[in-house]
Amino acid sequence: MHIDCFVTHVGLRERDARDKVIVVIDVLRASTTICTALSNGAKEVIPVNSIEQAMQLSSDLFADTTIVCGERGGVKVRGFDLGNSPREYTPGTVKGKSVVLTTTNGTEALVKSRTGSQILVGCFVNVSAVTEALANINEDLLVVCAGREQRFSLEDFYCAGMIINGIRETRNAEDTTVSDTASVAEITFRNYSDDPVKVLKDAAHGQSLIELGFEEDLHFCGEINRVPVLPVYHEGRITIHTA
Amino acid sequence: MHIDCFVTHVGLRERDARDKVIVVIDVLRASTTICTALSNGAKEVIPVNSIEQAMQLSSDLFADTTIVCGERGGVKVRGFDLGNSPREYTPGTVKGKSVVLTTTNGTEALVKSRTGSQILVGCFVNVSAVTEALANINEDLLVVCAGREQRFSLEDFYCAGMIINGIRETRNAEDTTVSDTASVAEITFRNYSDDPVKVLKDAAHGQSLIELGFEEDLHFCGEINRVPVLPVYHEGRITIHTA
Repeated sequence: MHIDCFVTHVGLRERDARDKVIVVIDVLRASTTICTALSNGAKEVIPVNSIEQAMQLSSDLFADTTIVCGERGGVKVRGFDLGNSPREYTPGTVKGKSVVLTTTNGTEALVKSRTGSQILVGCFVNVSAVTEALANINEDLLVVCAGREQRFSLEDFYCAGMIINGIRETRNAEDTTVSDTASVAEITFRNYSDDPVKVLKDAAHGQSLIELGFEEDLHFCGEINRVPVLPVYHEGRITIHTA
Repeated sequence: MHIDCFVTHVGLRERDARDKVIVVIDVLRASTTICTALSNGAKEVIPVNSIEQAMQLSSDLFADTTIVCGERGGVKVRGFDLGNSPREYTPGTVKGKSVVLTTTNGTEALVKSRTGSQILVGCFVNVSAVTEALANINEDLLVVCAGREQRFSLEDFYCAGMIINGIRETRNAEDTTVSDTASVAEITFRNYSDDPVKVLKDAAHGQSLIELGFEEDLHFCGEINRVPVLPVYHEGRITIHTA
């Protein structure tokens, strides 16, 4: 098993993702929102790149079964049902619904990863479920950090390091190689802080969310294993993996 | 002073670089080669993106005063005078010459940084000269890692961390802020290893150069302050900064 990591989806080509097991990380907040929606009974999450696509998929024809959700600049898109705060995705709002989701960073990372053989969604709230699922695979693993505004983000890279470190601790060292990026992600996890909420507060993205009034989201998104589901992206839809 | 860092030149736009002080890092090997060429008496280094541009600039008209140099895939371009090993850039080959240089990663990073207010070339062999020059500036600093094949590279990111750490140690903490990327670069420098040659040997790029027969270059490129010059890129040419 070789473990590689992209610090953002920028530069990620179809051929980089093809036939690899992939975990897409967007801690703030798409991955966390997806876990929460599915855990609270959403039928599926459908990630799309544009507001236009989201509107088309949630046209009046499907209004009873679909909600259209997402953000631009951290804030709910005008006319959408929900924004991108995981705290909005309660059973009352999502149970039985198809959630069409478009966000600035995370949904693009997911769509770009679609040539992978298996695509998981990871973040702090489901980190153990993801790590355990990946620890015993034989294929190569690609960890795709969503990043922020096409740039490196501390929180996704730190979470990548947490997952990579967890995988390496359970595997035979000789069976597992890591790329430069994966190695540095692990160093970042081991040396930055052992408190994910502190990581989120230090991160530029976290500071921006605090300014927008979403500080409570950092505590939600930073709680390890709060929402221990394993979302899998397959043929355009994200659902909970069932063994 | 705010310190930011790009892990590769991919995604670096003119407006990101504009009016910032920039240091471009390509440890393996363009930055090291540029330092060595200038230290050994080259009149200037002219970085260009393509083999075609290099050929045009070194046409017969200028054959007496110009040498055309660079690599693709780590190996000297057919018909060029020199490759990209700093050990080739001896006084006997470069003294008094204009060196037209095209490499896979470093020259593109330089050309993309050209809207900066001041552009330095950094690596291990001149790290103290660069760090001292940057420690007292008042403008914002952008550290541009060349990376490798448009991806993150350990050696450039570690060197970025070494420079950022050096700057922060000499400045008042309240006057200096760092981005997520710059912060993680510093963590990488502090925690990876204190031996730059080990960093180069661990890096995927270093391993590739060893396979190509350039192991000796890693010892050259990893020697701190071996070539203590301060190359400045201005109006298309790199020359040694003179106070």
